[in-house]
Amino acid sequence: MKAITRIEQSLAAVIATTEAPGCPPKLAGAIQHAVFPGGARIRPQLCLAVARACGDGDPVLADAAAVAIELLHCASLVHDDLPCFDDAQTRRGRASVQWAYGESMAVLAGDALIVLAFDALANAAGGSLQRLPGLMRIITAGVGMPYGIVAGQAWESESRVSLTVYQRAKTGALFVAATAAGAQAAGADPAPWQGLGHWLGEAYQVADDIRDVVADPQLLGKPVGRDAALGRPSAAAALGLGGALDHFNQLIANASASIPECDGAAQLRELVRMESERLVPLTMSRAVRDRLPAAAN
Amino acid sequence: MKAITRIEQSLAAVIATTEAPGCPPKLAGAIQHAVFPGGARIRPQLCLAVARACGDGDPVLADAAAVAIELLHCASLVHDDLPCFDDAQTRRGRASVQWAYGESMAVLAGDALIVLAFDALANAAGGSLQRLPGLMRIITAGVGMPYGIVAGQAWESESRVSLTVYQRAKTGALFVAATAAGAQAAGADPAPWQGLGHWLGEAYQVADDIRDVVADPQLLGKPVGRDAALGRPSAAAALGLGGALDHFNQLIANASASIPECDGAAQLRELVRMESERLVPLTMSRAVRDRLPAAAN
Repeated sequence: MKAITRIEQSLAAVIATTEAPGCPPKLAGAIQHAVFPGGARIRPQLCLAVARACGDGDPVLADAAAVAIELLHCASLVHDDLPCFDDAQTRRGRASVQWAYGESMAVLAGDALIVLAFDALANAAGGSLQRLPGLMRIITAGVGMPYGIVAGQAWESESRVSLTVYQRAKTGALFVAATAAGAQAAGADPAPWQGLGHWLGEAYQVADDIRDVVADPQLLGKPVGRDAALGRPSAAAALGLGGALDHFNQLIANASASIPECDGAAQLRELVRMESERLVPLTMSRAVRDRLPAAAN
Repeated sequence: MKAITRIEQSLAAVIATTEAPGCPPKLAGAIQHAVFPGGARIRPQLCLAVARACGDGDPVLADAAAVAIELLHCASLVHDDLPCFDDAQTRRGRASVQWAYGESMAVLAGDALIVLAFDALANAAGGSLQRLPGLMRIITAGVGMPYGIVAGQAWESESRVSLTVYQRAKTGALFVAATAAGAQAAGADPAPWQGLGHWLGEAYQVADDIRDVVADPQLLGKPVGRDAALGRPSAAAALGLGGALDHFNQLIANASASIPECDGAAQLRELVRMESERLVPLTMSRAVRDRLPAAAN
């Protein structure tokens, strides 16, 4: 079965548990809206790809790890779109949860998704109990305080912030969790896999900053120019567009080089290459280079 | 060591992990503010009392279960106080988190506390690994969809809601989780302990409804009259004040009667009696009875 099919089926099975008879229907709708249809599902794909590269020793637990990471990612998007943060009306090309279901349902949907992520882990751990605490700690480190995605979001409210610290927490931490969780779920040592998540997470954030400046909002599925409008730290603002593009390419090279030697290494390097092209398509690189003299220096 | 000392020390140790060097300071402050100083800590006390009644077979895991339940309770209070729900300026007699730290920090503090609850479980499970998935499921059922506290809060946004369904989810579910988790952490069957949590949770909610009508806001530490102002389902509105008081007394009697026979049964019944007197002091019962002819029929 293709990884994306595994992921969508596992997500659907977990979300179905929230829709039992007698549940509050608006919140059930908001949760469904937050998870389907999804984006590229890059974090769970990365988690499963690493689990496969490590021998896929417990596919049930690997699926649950991938699902947990995607649910936590969706929760963070739903809360980031709230009026007190980005106040976004659109997400993934349609109404954001807060716009479609209201602010209170968006708060609760995010909360419910966080809880559901850990429920999914608990329900899948029977075959490899001894891996569960480590897997939970990898994931809580990626999302919680002091260095996970909630910390990253909190840095937007501080007057002094390092771009590196901010991006590591806001984006990198969950990518690190995705690769490390894939290894841990498969029974391998997660430590050598942190580098891949780290470099890819940083590349993803830099690509996001570039696209926030140059992308077509129709294609992106969300508004552009938000970083500048909200005064958020951004690689494009700090390095200029050309510098940000160079930095992106270096990060992708680092990601590829960090992949530990294993049977699935070539396949993983191909995944990194495809993801790089998806994040910053060649046409966008050219557009950035074309804009350089006027816009980016 | 007294149960309350165990709880406060465990909470302090867990919260300290969020304040590592390089964490975003406002969010760290908001998390600290959300948990300390606490209220009566009735849910973790109940959890530890049941664990003790079941032989306290793994005190480290019982402490973590109690901490997880209290952190999830604190998270729900922080999010309930947000402008899109109660818009409360005060909580536990001082500024609410959203009032002291702003709305965005309140959203993130709640998120961080949910994650931290599961982190605490992961860190304490080493001695009784086989109990961890069941413990996690007991706790996720108490807080998540379809019947936990997020569902209870979501029912406030539905136009049709059963008072029983609403109260079970909003308050009862976490009390059931507290008693069941105490038993599970100690290695006992959690099922016979659900009744105690169920009755006590319902009693707690009815007491809250009564106090929202008759209490002194200074003593309560939060505003009164919110249920009526927000049109929320309330036992006081549905049954009248006198009916609500009778209902409360019956629920406390049910709670006491539900305690399974065990060495700690007498001690637990005493805890229920003391909690009943704390929730609705005799002076408040008298005040309700005095108001009956004019106010409650």
